[in-house]
Amino acid sequence: MKPKSKTRNNPPATAKHERAGHAYRQAGRKRIVVMGGGTGTYTALTGLKKYPVHLTAIVSMADNGGSTKILREEFGILPPGSVRPAIVALSNAEQALSDLFNFRFENGTGLNGHNFGNLFLTALTKQLGSFEKAIEAAGNVLHIKGEVIPSTLQDCHLFAELENGTVIEGETNIDVPRHNGNLKIRTIWTKPNVKANPKALRAIKEADLIVIGPGDLYSSILPNILVKGMKEALKTSNAKKIYICNIMTKFGETTGFDSGDFVSTIEKYLDKGVLDYVLLNTRKPLASRITKYEKEKAAFVELHEEDFRGSPFKVIKKDVLRKQGLIRHDPEKLAQALLSLL
Amino acid sequence: MKPKSKTRNNPPATAKHERAGHAYRQAGRKRIVVMGGGTGTYTALTGLKKYPVHLTAIVSMADNGGSTKILREEFGILPPGSVRPAIVALSNAEQALSDLFNFRFENGTGLNGHNFGNLFLTALTKQLGSFEKAIEAAGNVLHIKGEVIPSTLQDCHLFAELENGTVIEGETNIDVPRHNGNLKIRTIWTKPNVKANPKALRAIKEADLIVIGPGDLYSSILPNILVKGMKEALKTSNAKKIYICNIMTKFGETTGFDSGDFVSTIEKYLDKGVLDYVLLNTRKPLASRITKYEKEKAAFVELHEEDFRGSPFKVIKKDVLRKQGLIRHDPEKLAQALLSLL
Repeated sequence: MKPKSKTRNNPPATAKHERAGHAYRQAGRKRIVVMGGGTGTYTALTGLKKYPVHLTAIVSMADNGGSTKILREEFGILPPGSVRPAIVALSNAEQALSDLFNFRFENGTGLNGHNFGNLFLTALTKQLGSFEKAIEAAGNVLHIKGEVIPSTLQDCHLFAELENGTVIEGETNIDVPRHNGNLKIRTIWTKPNVKANPKALRAIKEADLIVIGPGDLYSSILPNILVKGMKEALKTSNAKKIYICNIMTKFGETTGFDSGDFVSTIEKYLDKGVLDYVLLNTRKPLASRITKYEKEKAAFVELHEEDFRGSPFKVIKKDVLRKQGLIRHDPEKLAQALLSLL
Repeated sequence: MKPKSKTRNNPPATAKHERAGHAYRQAGRKRIVVMGGGTGTYTALTGLKKYPVHLTAIVSMADNGGSTKILREEFGILPPGSVRPAIVALSNAEQALSDLFNFRFENGTGLNGHNFGNLFLTALTKQLGSFEKAIEAAGNVLHIKGEVIPSTLQDCHLFAELENGTVIEGETNIDVPRHNGNLKIRTIWTKPNVKANPKALRAIKEADLIVIGPGDLYSSILPNILVKGMKEALKTSNAKKIYICNIMTKFGETTGFDSGDFVSTIEKYLDKGVLDYVLLNTRKPLASRITKYEKEKAAFVELHEEDFRGSPFKVIKKDVLRKQGLIRHDPEKLAQALLSLL
């Protein structure tokens, strides 16, 4: 698939044009759903955005750290933390404007630590009366290509039980472990047991390809699958479903995981047989890049072929590593791998 | 002059289109500069916006109250307080978006009292490195018609000496008097004695009509005229210059003023002979409307013909009163009165 002309250089379409042109331009386009939360979802979306496909991001509503925590508590809104990077990823607005969405106030007794995008979504929610309308309005301002859909519209929090029986409350305490990070997570759940957003279910039903991951397994990916109705929707959708395994482990979440552990955890929540593909990175970064991760106790995710013998899904093994810098998926390599499945 | 078709119903132009089309569409249009700050400037701009004229708002940089005070102190930016309403007035964006700019956070330990528009301008200033660029970027997002120009780009604060010799520091302490509001203001100045923004001077030079007011005399209007170079620019500009006298007095600023007092104060700072016109409202509101202002000790500004005998300017006497609600200028009546001078 050839990338479409770079939208950054085109005059950005207006909100109205975008909407009016949407149906026409998108007709016949393959529909890809990316499910997740933070940086991994951002990476997948930015890679895919360059191609003529219809994109939907389904994002976690379990975030409760930092700026998001304050805004949830003080304004009673759904968490903007995972919506923000997805909107930025899909933005075709001027760079300055999408950068602004990620801007973090670093002074100010009251504003310190707030992302501008979070404040934007909060103000819009209060003004328009709904988080969904706020996302739509923010999407219009940032001229996004595609849609960002919260996995649920109900307020919930994430809980995890460790292998020693300790229960951890809140996504942020799983994401940034305050517990012994060497202990494995036995199980996670949300409280209350919230229902999936009907729009998310529809997107899954209509999708040609559903991309789960990459991203933090317990704190970004699985909270989407936990919502009532999501697993069933994934099972019954005719879309091809692929899980993108992470390249690095995360201390306190996936300590010591190899790719087999990642996949079997996903299958535990998704049921065996739902995934059609699993994408595993084959390129090991230079030791010098990996050592930078030692202080955060993260390690390269090893691939053991024997873990996948007799799997009901097809294993795609590919170099999807970013060439330099942080050890993450390369957006373009990832997009190519995904588009080849359409 | 006929109003142009209502822009709200047109598809909003993109930032790029707006800029590209600007020169073409604006060619040959009369250039009107509105000088001031808060609500009065907002009123004048919203009235004029409906007509095919080129609009420039020159706004005060002396504000230091509330949200603006915090953002000035904690982020070291120029005051967004007077920029915000001018941008909203000139906005052709969807109503929800321009409303959002005025949205005020009303909960939140840290966010309480901040206008969203102020946070927007603060984040943009930090990100783009300049307040001017931030105003331009915000203007693009809100698809403004025309320009908003700070009267100075230098940080300053407003001071007032009362008739008893007391010195009041800060615009907000003049605007909302903590002193004996019955005492007259003897003189005002800024510290430091800042220079006019060259862009403001250019707008004044190129203008066909310069509208001073309506608005708070000492805390919104005069701070613009105080900046070095502004008075001279106003003197030498070939534009017609009109002062719009307020309809109500303001306690602590213009207590007991009649229209002669307003005009003579303007002339004190602008020099006699600079104004070509003074616009005075002739319609007295019903007593029931005026009594609502008693608690804030504001009174109707009376017109005494003898005050203007032998004046170097032409006095325009017109009903420019809003029909109901707050006693303010009617945007449409004001626009008509101004456009008749072109």
